[in-house]
Amino acid sequence: MSVVTIERKVLEKNEAVADQNRRLFAGHGLFVLNMVSSPGAGKTSLLEETIARLRSRVRIAVIEGDVQTDLDARRVEKYGVPVVQIVTNGGCHLEARLVQDAAASMDLAPVDLLVIENVGNLVCPANYDLGEALKVVVASTTEGDDKPLKYPAMFRNASVLVINKIDLLPYLKSDLKTLRANALQINPRLEVFETSCTTGEGMEAWCAWLERQVKGSRTT
Amino acid sequence: MSVVTIERKVLEKNEAVADQNRRLFAGHGLFVLNMVSSPGAGKTSLLEETIARLRSRVRIAVIEGDVQTDLDARRVEKYGVPVVQIVTNGGCHLEARLVQDAAASMDLAPVDLLVIENVGNLVCPANYDLGEALKVVVASTTEGDDKPLKYPAMFRNASVLVINKIDLLPYLKSDLKTLRANALQINPRLEVFETSCTTGEGMEAWCAWLERQVKGSRTT
Repeated sequence: MSVVTIERKVLEKNEAVADQNRRLFAGHGLFVLNMVSSPGAGKTSLLEETIARLRSRVRIAVIEGDVQTDLDARRVEKYGVPVVQIVTNGGCHLEARLVQDAAASMDLAPVDLLVIENVGNLVCPANYDLGEALKVVVASTTEGDDKPLKYPAMFRNASVLVINKIDLLPYLKSDLKTLRANALQINPRLEVFETSCTTGEGMEAWCAWLERQVKGSRTT
Repeated sequence: MSVVTIERKVLEKNEAVADQNRRLFAGHGLFVLNMVSSPGAGKTSLLEETIARLRSRVRIAVIEGDVQTDLDARRVEKYGVPVVQIVTNGGCHLEARLVQDAAASMDLAPVDLLVIENVGNLVCPANYDLGEALKVVVASTTEGDDKPLKYPAMFRNASVLVINKIDLLPYLKSDLKTLRANALQINPRLEVFETSCTTGEGMEAWCAWLERQVKGSRTT
């Protein structure tokens, strides 16, 4: 038995559970995001700012994935939305089964938007479908503009790119145009947003788009 | 056969090759670093600045590990040091065998310091010994001060922490003291440096320490 075979079996099994998740989410009319990024790109901050802006119009719930600690769940909880923390205990990505278990512990009926925040890792979560509608990759300007070329699978498998921490651009060598061009070279269909959770710049455009997606999924 | 068993076998096999690498490196009187971090924490920039400062006194060679592209090898090559690029082609970490293959293609006799730059990933490379003398984890101030708590294995298994991009601290909410305290809570034996590759701050202390390590390993 080769490692490749094991990996394929793991992915096939994950895919089957992801399909079960997708049916469960569809049954509840839920729109589901899988947020991925490097550690510290600002997924949790983006989520906090998104909840603060949308919670009066969209009913949001959150599943947090982390290698260790419930620090992120505690941050999100303060915004008054239901949140479940998955601790992978060393595991480098979320799998559909972990999300299935977390979802089973939640009341999904009164929820419009479920955000799954994955483990901070720009490699391993790329190939694990969780049953989401869209994968959102968050890239921080501080990581440099070459990351889409160096970690292409994540940018290829995502539908949305949020370029975060644009307030820091004046102090960096990395270039927004180059980052955007590199991402679109890997995946020309990416929907791209530029945000700063510190200044709020770009948050309205991102939240308005997200709200349209949630409402569109409800009517279809 | 459980996944845990497979993982243990993989690690045991890796450990055996890492020991072979260690003997090879010792035979050449080589001091070897394994540099790990999140994507975009500044490993390559730190390496470039280190080479620029040390190359007149220390003979340096580099092994670059990336998921895709030879962008980093091309950056390092400009400094006139021997460099071999490993492309993992989707793989999330370097293994001892890949380093063994890369080392076999290099002339190690005229080298004092070999730096292995791992794939940008704060999870998976933590448990893979490459035969190095020291694991150096680079953490960027922009990633926030909670990362040692959320990704403890990497900080536990490292001997050195380089806190990079300290020039950006005035523009961030994250706090240097908290980051340092969190890292030392996970691993009290960490040797900690604070650097900026943009301003050069802290580079002399890091390079002087590294030079002492290299010279110390030569005489023992």
